[in-house]
Parts: sequence; structure tokens; C-alpha cells
Amino acid sequence: MIDGTQAEFVRTPFADNSLYLLPEALNEDVAVLLSDALPTAHEIGVQYGNVQPGDTIAVIGAGPVGMGCVLTAQLYSPSSIIVIDMDDNRLAMARELGATHTINSAQEDAIARVLEITEGRGVDCAIEAVGLEATWNICQHIVKEGGHIANVDVHGKPVQFALEKLWIKNLTITTSLVNANTTSMLLKTCCSGKLPMEKLATHSFGFSELGKAYDVFKHAADEKAMKVMIDF
Amino acid sequence: MIDGTQAEFVRTPFADNSLYLLPEALNEDVAVLLSDALPTAHEIGVQYGNVQPGDTIAVIGAGPVGMGCVLTAQLYSPSSIIVIDMDDNRLAMARELGATHTINSAQEDAIARVLEITEGRGVDCAIEAVGLEATWNICQHIVKEGGHIANVDVHGKPVQFALEKLWIKNLTITTSLVNANTTSMLLKTCCSGKLPMEKLATHSFGFSELGKAYDVFKHAADEKAMKVMIDF
Repeated sequence: MIDGTQAEFVRTPFADNSLYLLPEALNEDVAVLLSDALPTAHEIGVQYGNVQPGDTIAVIGAGPVGMGCVLTAQLYSPSSIIVIDMDDNRLAMARELGATHTINSAQEDAIARVLEITEGRGVDCAIEAVGLEATWNICQHIVKEGGHIANVDVHGKPVQFALEKLWIKNLTITTSLVNANTTSMLLKTCCSGKLPMEKLATHSFGFSELGKAYDVFKHAADEKAMKVMIDF
Repeated sequence: MIDGTQAEFVRTPFADNSLYLLPEALNEDVAVLLSDALPTAHEIGVQYGNVQPGDTIAVIGAGPVGMGCVLTAQLYSPSSIIVIDMDDNRLAMARELGATHTINSAQEDAIARVLEITEGRGVDCAIEAVGLEATWNICQHIVKEGGHIANVDVHGKPVQFALEKLWIKNLTITTSLVNANTTSMLLKTCCSGKLPMEKLATHSFGFSELGKAYDVFKHAADEKAMKVMIDF
């Protein structure tokens, strides 16, 4: 809710509260992702989604935050990670980063496919990393009794919530903005090589090429872009 | 999902799992409420709603389950218990059972009134004990950042979920059917006099008067009925 930070100087209120020493061994692109995308994925997706060893989870949306969920979920050893997206390039990267199953929801009925993979049971945790009614709907129809839906992304419109079916299912649904309370842990985990986030930094531009950087990000599918880095 | 139990003999699958010795000191009407209404209120409303000492909570719906929430919430020492209903008799009983504030939502704008009581902050926990879109709406508009919405009741239709406002609010929303895993604790607490549930048993009928009992329950507001007991 404060102005953006693509500027030469930035005043950050209470920054003492959120500064970390950057280890020399840490890839700088990874450090950038540690400021928001990775803690959002870990805290709001994986932690609030209560991912546990042996779980079957689904990540809807294979953007940078969804990919962060795929990576950080593995810290808790789920058995299956199903990733759903409409972009085959992103799904291929998701498999590279640890997804056990991928579904292209432009080509397949994602709900039917998840129920098939889980033998009709549904998933322990569905992570909504897009922010649309269609992706929310996938989540509410694939989560099993006692499961979790973790809403990670920004929504612009209300959604329909199927309480007439879900009131009985002992679900936990969470919504959140990142806390950044696990940044320190994630920083150490990135340094240890367990979270190869550098793969998400697909493009890099100088500060003078800012317009071009935004163009690439706007056409992310065509440009096969995940995160676009800007070097000041 | 099995047939009802208003019969001379009932076969209960796995009943060994859910039988408790009835202490002689326990009021029999209270024992009846321990089978469903009270554990539902405690587990699905108060526990899943994460009621904590000092909290401000709202219970929407002052029926037997809502009243059970008012009573069992007090085991966890919230500071304020706001009860919302459209029936003044029920609201009066809620105050008797421990509500600190009551709102008649047929006469007042419940959302505005809760925000006024909480100085604009909203409540830590909103318990939905009715099962309608209108009461769900009160919940989603009065819960504060980091708060809980516990859906206790049966819904017949989908509701609108204001994710465009709530995605950022770090909410936890739960839906559930009773577990009955706290029945033993509640039984002891009833015996100790801490949960005066007998006040909820407003009417009593013999088994031969079953039709009449249902008539009274159907016109609960006019009959000032909460729970109608049937003696076999």
C-alpha cells in the first residue's frame, strides 16, 4: 500500500525489522526472490496449507510463486505434487523443480484429472496461486475431507464458495499477505542449495531497459519468462 | 447419512467408539445435548474458531448450537461475546448465558454495529451458526485481519466469498461436521456446573406426542422454544 521501489532511493518504514545480511555465496537473483516471491510461497502456500510428509498436494498456477510452492513444499516431504497451469513450458519447468504430475488445464479437465490421480480422494492441500474464480473453483472441488485450501494470490473479484457441499468436509481455508517471518530460514536453505530458485530468473535487464523488461514480462508465455531481473 | 434414531431400537455402527458412562449427577436433558449440539458448538465453533483469552468473538445465530458456542467459548475466556439473532427472546437468553453484547439484526445493521462495538477493528472470531448467505456475509465483513471464521451450520446454497477484499487479511476459514472428540471433556464440564445447558431444554414431550413436539419446534420463535426434548 506504499509506492513502488523502482527508484534510486527508497524510504522503508521500520526497515531494521526486515534486514538480513546477504551471504557472499548467495546468488543475487535468488536474493531478489527472497524479498517476496519465495516467502509468500512458503508461508502463505505451504505453511498455511499445512503440507505434511506423505501428503498429496496440488499447486494451481506455475508462475514464480507457484514454483516457489513446488520447491518449498519439498522441505516437508509430500508424496505427490500436482501442478496445474495452461502453459506447457511452465509445466516442464515445474517437473524439473519437483512436480510429480502436471496438468495442462487448457487441454484437460483439471478437476477430473486430479480426482483420477488421487483415486477419487482429492488432495490434502490445494494451493491457489493464480487469483481467478476458475482456479479457486479447481481448488474447492479437488480438496479432500479434512484438507486445506491456501489462497496465495491477489483476487480482483468475489468468487462462489460451494458451502452447500463443503460445510461438512472439515476444511481449512486461508487467505494471506506474506509475513516474511521465514525469510531467515529460507535464506539459509537457498545457500545450502536446496531451493534452486535461480532457475526462475529467466531474463535480466539494465535499469535503462526498464520498458523492455516490462514488455517481456507482459508477454511472459511467448517469451518463456518467469521472473525478469532488473540490475540497477 | 444414516437413518434417524427416533425409534425403539437403533443399530449404531462402531458404537463402542463413542459410548460414555452417564454420571448419575448429570441432568438427562444435558446428556441429550452432549450427543451433538454441544460438541458441535465447542469443536466446530469455538475450537476451530481458535477462541483465545481476551478475544472479541461474534456468534451469529442464537439457536441451541449458537448458545452452545456462547457457553463453551467462555471456557477460553474471551473478553467480549457479541451475539446476533433476529429473536429478542433468544438474545435475552444469550445475555443470561454470558453474551456481553447482543444485536437484533432485524432491527439494526449488524455489520455496522459490530464495527462500532469493536472500534472499527472487527472480531477475532466470527462463528456462523445459521447456514444462510446473509449470516455468512455478516461473518466475512466483521472478521478482522488474522481472524477466524468458523462455519458451524449446514448450508443449502453456495455463498459469495469476498476474496477481492479478504485475500490480504490473513484469515482462517473452517467448515466442519462435529468430531465428538471432546465429548468426554464436555461431559465432565457439564457435571461441574460450568455449562448450564439445561436452560436450553425449554419443552418436553412424551414419545406419543411426537407430532406435537415437532409442531412446537417448527414455530420455535412463537413458542419460545430452544430444544424440544422427547421422552421415550
